[in-house]
Amino acid sequence: MPSAQELADRVESGDLRLYELQDHADPKTAAEARRLLLKEETDADLDTVADFSFPAERADPNIENMIGAAQIPMGVAGPVPVDGSAADDDFYVPLATTEGALVASVNRGMAAIRDAGGANAEVLKYGITRAPVFSVADVKEAADVVEWVEDNEDQIEEVANATDPHIEYQEVTPYVVGDNVYLRLHYDTGDAMGMNMVTIASRSVAELIEDETPASLVAVSGNLCNDKKPAAINAVEGRGYTVAADVFLPSDVVEDRFGTTAEAIAEVNTRKNLVGSAKAGALGFNAHVANILGAAFLALGQDEAHVVDGSNAITSVEARDDGLYASVTFSSLPVGTVGGGTGLPTQSEALDVLGLAGGGDPVGTNGDALAEVIASAGLAGELSLLGALAGRHLASAHEEHGR
Amino acid sequence: MPSAQELADRVESGDLRLYELQDHADPKTAAEARRLLLKEETDADLDTVADFSFPAERADPNIENMIGAAQIPMGVAGPVPVDGSAADDDFYVPLATTEGALVASVNRGMAAIRDAGGANAEVLKYGITRAPVFSVADVKEAADVVEWVEDNEDQIEEVANATDPHIEYQEVTPYVVGDNVYLRLHYDTGDAMGMNMVTIASRSVAELIEDETPASLVAVSGNLCNDKKPAAINAVEGRGYTVAADVFLPSDVVEDRFGTTAEAIAEVNTRKNLVGSAKAGALGFNAHVANILGAAFLALGQDEAHVVDGSNAITSVEARDDGLYASVTFSSLPVGTVGGGTGLPTQSEALDVLGLAGGGDPVGTNGDALAEVIASAGLAGELSLLGALAGRHLASAHEEHGR
Amino acid sequence: MPSAQELADRVESGDLRLYELQDHADPKTAAEARRLLLKEETDADLDTVADFSFPAERADPNIENMIGAAQIPMGVAGPVPVDGSAADDDFYVPLATTEGALVASVNRGMAAIRDAGGANAEVLKYGITRAPVFSVADVKEAADVVEWVEDNEDQIEEVANATDPHIEYQEVTPYVVGDNVYLRLHYDTGDAMGMNMVTIASRSVAELIEDETPASLVAVSGNLCNDKKPAAINAVEGRGYTVAADVFLPSDVVEDRFGTTAEAIAEVNTRKNLVGSAKAGALGFNAHVANILGAAFLALGQDEAHVVDGSNAITSVEARDDGLYASVTFSSLPVGTVGGGTGLPTQSEALDVLGLAGGGDPVGTNGDALAEVIASAGLAGELSLLGALAGRHLASAHEEHGR
Amino acid sequence: MPSAQELADRVESGDLRLYELQDHADPKTAAEARRLLLKEETDADLDTVADFSFPAERADPNIENMIGAAQIPMGVAGPVPVDGSAADDDFYVPLATTEGALVASVNRGMAAIRDAGGANAEVLKYGITRAPVFSVADVKEAADVVEWVEDNEDQIEEVANATDPHIEYQEVTPYVVGDNVYLRLHYDTGDAMGMNMVTIASRSVAELIEDETPASLVAVSGNLCNDKKPAAINAVEGRGYTVAADVFLPSDVVEDRFGTTAEAIAEVNTRKNLVGSAKAGALGFNAHVANILGAAFLALGQDEAHVVDGSNAITSVEARDDGLYASVTFSSLPVGTVGGGTGLPTQSEALDVLGLAGGGDPVGTNGDALAEVIASAGLAGELSLLGALAGRHLASAHEEHGR
Repeated sequence: MPSAQELADRVESGDLRLYELQDHADPKTAAEARRLLLKEETDADLDTVADFSFPAERADPNIENMIGAAQIPMGVAGPVPVDGSAADDDFYVPLATTEGALVASVNRGMAAIRDAGGANAEVLKYGITRAPVFSVADVKEAADVVEWVEDNEDQIEEVANATDPHIEYQEVTPYVVGDNVYLRLHYDTGDAMGMNMVTIASRSVAELIEDETPASLVAVSGNLCNDKKPAAINAVEGRGYTVAADVFLPSDVVEDRFGTTAEAIAEVNTRKNLVGSAKAGALGFNAHVANILGAAFLALGQDEAHVVDGSNAITSVEARDDGLYASVTFSSLPVGTVGGGTGLPTQSEALDVLGLAGGGDPVGTNGDALAEVIASAGLAGELSLLGALAGRHLASAHEEHGR
Repeated sequence: MPSAQELADRVESGDLRLYELQDHADPKTAAEARRLLLKEETDADLDTVADFSFPAERADPNIENMIGAAQIPMGVAGPVPVDGSAADDDFYVPLATTEGALVASVNRGMAAIRDAGGANAEVLKYGITRAPVFSVADVKEAADVVEWVEDNEDQIEEVANATDPHIEYQEVTPYVVGDNVYLRLHYDTGDAMGMNMVTIASRSVAELIEDETPASLVAVSGNLCNDKKPAAINAVEGRGYTVAADVFLPSDVVEDRFGTTAEAIAEVNTRKNLVGSAKAGALGFNAHVANILGAAFLALGQDEAHVVDGSNAITSVEARDDGLYASVTFSSLPVGTVGGGTGLPTQSEALDVLGLAGGGDPVGTNGDALAEVIASAGLAGELSLLGALAGRHLASAHEEHGR
Repeated sequence: MPSAQELADRVESGDLRLYELQDHADPKTAAEARRLLLKEETDADLDTVADFSFPAERADPNIENMIGAAQIPMGVAGPVPVDGSAADDDFYVPLATTEGALVASVNRGMAAIRDAGGANAEVLKYGITRAPVFSVADVKEAADVVEWVEDNEDQIEEVANATDPHIEYQEVTPYVVGDNVYLRLHYDTGDAMGMNMVTIASRSVAELIEDETPASLVAVSGNLCNDKKPAAINAVEGRGYTVAADVFLPSDVVEDRFGTTAEAIAEVNTRKNLVGSAKAGALGFNAHVANILGAAFLALGQDEAHVVDGSNAITSVEARDDGLYASVTFSSLPVGTVGGGTGLPTQSEALDVLGLAGGGDPVGTNGDALAEVIASAGLAGELSLLGALAGRHLASAHEEHGR
Repeated sequence: MPSAQELADRVESGDLRLYELQDHADPKTAAEARRLLLKEETDADLDTVADFSFPAERADPNIENMIGAAQIPMGVAGPVPVDGSAADDDFYVPLATTEGALVASVNRGMAAIRDAGGANAEVLKYGITRAPVFSVADVKEAADVVEWVEDNEDQIEEVANATDPHIEYQEVTPYVVGDNVYLRLHYDTGDAMGMNMVTIASRSVAELIEDETPASLVAVSGNLCNDKKPAAINAVEGRGYTVAADVFLPSDVVEDRFGTTAEAIAEVNTRKNLVGSAKAGALGFNAHVANILGAAFLALGQDEAHVVDGSNAITSVEARDDGLYASVTFSSLPVGTVGGGTGLPTQSEALDVLGLAGGGDPVGTNGDALAEVIASAGLAGELSLLGALAGRHLASAHEEHGR
């Protein structure tokens, strides 16, 4: 086998293309060759990028043109007691981030939840979606295609389910715009987030539709899925997990943990998260759930681009006589405990901290529990930031923890 | 100094709190103590999490309760020639992701751009925002406060600029809803993304407003900033960088690289990214820019939660007689080359690959160039996926690269 | 019976309240008394307001504190041939408006449609909605309430249908946000738009929910209906009629009627209605359907405030080798031919022009046909304005027809 | 001059086209001829449509193909005391509608406002917009065009102001998407709503841009105006009048007028108008302002299609120790007292009831006052419906007043 330097030289001379390196060397050597090439071309040293803690071949399903690994500091917050439909334990939650003060903030919120005896969490709805778009002749043909789909859902189900033993077809919602037909297909993919699975299944469904109707497939995703774009269809109808967490904090907990009152926190929530978001034309009515999702997704092997979908969340707060009711409802949280990045070593270890690595027993319960734990972490983060804002401490907290 | 095991024992016995460990040991020992505690509590081994390639104290400004690092496979795509207002070179772009096929996809798009002689890129607007919310007595007082603000912008500028030598106040946009006044403050923070800086500056401005008017600060962020939530105000008005990249691909490049035609790609874009997104109630009219942002942000030390803001992008495609015009316009891309996670070792090395680590000369040019390179990478990703969809190859590409 | 002047004097002296006049005189005299009072209080003559062409008592179900009538000029456009699922004829369409050039514009579009042999139209979905909001203790109770609802839809149907012989329950979609449960109830109300009917039915359903679950009704409308506010839930999921109309215009028709080309019109549609609307954060991707709806609604006795819901429409245009395909898809058009203002004399006469006054046979066909005719008129308006813009004639058209 | 019957016969025989009738007869005779034609074609009698109270030629600038008038019952609510920046009086507000219970509802809200001593109202921002869209070669040229625009605003102002003595250019906001440049031009048009004026001015500005830059005009409206479509740009940035009204109702007024408490009304507002609207993906966070706008617009000669823009309103409610604070803020209310339908007889009389017919002195004050009065009427309508919902009386109120 040629050395990394020889390979790098061949790429530089134009004899090999960058992406062809994988065919001429083992993953580790190929990565080294790419680093040598980059050193030559850009004068960049990649010593820490090169010093990763997993066998290079473990990343084969996850990356191409590998040069090493990004390392993101990982901390831990908790424990947070969660009483969920699937999660029922005290959880330490690993969070990977570069934003100073974030883990501390979530940790403070979890302390308040602990003081209050724990958070409720509930998966309210579940189903991952893919929506192929078809072209038709006109609106009459569109109506005909929709009618065929509604009359033949059993065929669609059969075709979809045949593509993978871990997929379960749920339902289809058709949408028509002029000579476009979009079929939003909903699936249960067990403990997997499942985007790849449902893309394959949807391609098969699309072939069936093309065989049986005059519709012609334009794209296996027609953006009514909607994957990784801010979109009302997800905020309203859900995608992946629709999951909520809530807690009632007695007044003394609010005072002890946040140095403020339930009324002050409720006022911040109304003027910022509700009225401010309304005026901003927002689809996310919360303070900073994306921060918690971003950090949890990185630590736990989730797809970081799904932070977009996950940020469709509404935080509600109500001051009551004896304390504070607070909830966070995520409409579209696409997460899973198998597939994607979950099998990589640091990610798998982080899932072990939650006791949720791999498939659940029964199937789906690990995915459900992960959604509920993340929702509870989001609740902790919201409580903490709202509490800090109510006490006008945001900027000073940042100063202290620095960045 | 006590050993990690002794410290872990003290936390477990309730003698110490998790977050107090940082005061009783150096960062490395404290991290080890936390891992021991988690092992005890959850039976999770954290061997690969523990095996990180940077000195623990380097992460002090970025994390609390550190236990180690998440490791995300990093690949490289390119080179992509970019003719920008600040970026003007051929760039290899580091991308960290766990989504198989993504780097290969971006790489293919960059090859097409290379064949066409490179991409244009332009920073169209720039300014990071923070919008404190104030309560007032009624709409009359709201009008008075707004009038004071508009009449005294010089004082606001002076107060804001005094908080940090690297901040430059730009302007203020006031919004009133009933007895709420929101002041959206815009700043230039040079090569830094700058959220922390502008939070501190905005707190000072808020104090000025409170001193000089009857308004009372409710929260230093009133969600008209809008930070890390899907929101039309960012999609319409911009936040951070408003930046666009485009390219004209001659017909033979379209055929060679994607095996399809300009017309077919244009049709996919119209039916999916425009009409499909319209029907979905979207704020992002693109195919998958969040994937490219997520991967570039991780590799390059950006805040992963800002993928939410970044996903407000519109992809336009036009079939012309002799080829394909394609553009991606990001309305709100908050990125920087100093501060945040940019100083961490793997991230700094990745920025070195671009030649954009640290502050620019003149100030701001590195930030500008980074925005233009990321926009160009986004364009490559869009071209590649639209090309693949036009050839109905999405799902099979996933199958091949696996996940 | 006292004279109008005596009654006006009694109101002015404080002896009677304005709204009590209806109890002391017949509708005509009461209206006269109110005009006398306004003359006294504001010095306004109301001679033309007083000169209305229907018996005052006919308006009793439609107005309180009546003083007369607003008179809006009514014109007619057409005929437009419509090949719909319910409408199948050439229709002259009455339009009442004060916007000069509007009727002429729609008329020109209809001429083009006529030249092309007529428009297709299709009701794609139908159901009017009302969504009561309930408060519950927490997210666990919310999940329980939703479960009860899903398990007992037969009871809900029975209760709803018992409220009115003209109502037919369709389905319920539950939404949960923290301690709020919203039940979006869908109904078929035949030829009536039916908002009043479904409010009454939903109140009964709400009583059932309160009896059988721990949920407590907060409001019979919780804004997920969503009635008369711009809202993505209607734009995505529909409300009232989801209805589309389309047409293919041969190239010579495009040239003759608009003096431009299919390509030019398609370019206007993409840059204005698709990309421009995308950048505007719009829920309506069209040129001016609200104008046509506003005018048709006024002429035909529809609720003018429903123009808001109706404006959720997407116009698509495609240049083909031999001409122009154009469609307009309305997601949420709440219209009807019985109830509301449809029974008033001028409105009923206008419905007679369409041959659609009163209930259809079978039930619902008049409502369906009205939706299809209005959609076709909307298509005509879109074609005409896009054609005019393509020829840069908008402003000059306004100048000519003046305002 | 030929008789109406002769003319109708000529149209029927194909000798004349419908729209040519205006050239062969006076408006009254032409209208009669059209009615005769419709009678022949559709068998519809149009006796009440024919019986209108204004000279047919008065409607010439407002309608084409006139056949008569739609008559909408008009009622009156009030008086409501308004303390505004321009409005300062007790106003009786004419409302034309076919929705039973609406005038009564507004009237009840006004009674509560009266009891509380009146409403505040404030015009917060003003400017009507038109946004032409231009095509350019690429993003570099787009940046150049924007630079030219920003550097030459004095030329733009001069050209715009030269088109009409009643127009005053305010500013321009440029937006770029790929090879599209949108210039959102803002104008002051005094007491006129002014859409026609600003279209003409914007056409002249567009000619200047075409002369001085490489940009090519695609359409004088590029949908970033945004006129008559639901769009975040209006909800966030305003269009026409941004105007708010508010009131503080002491607890006894809440109890007397609505039979409920401030807390109950605040709860309804939070769960319905804020959280419910948030979940619905709404741009309007209110209960039913479109109803009040629709009715006021019809009575007062406004453009009914602008109800779409007007419905971008946020209602805020806060329970305080001694009563209820309530506000409604309209972001985009395009209204005027001259031009459009304001000069028609019944509409002009209705404006007389407000004392706001015709141009103000100084210019613009009548337009301002009209906006403030309509906002106050909207506040009354919101209070009344929220109060009714809080007492669970919505449906029964409808039943009583019937429809």
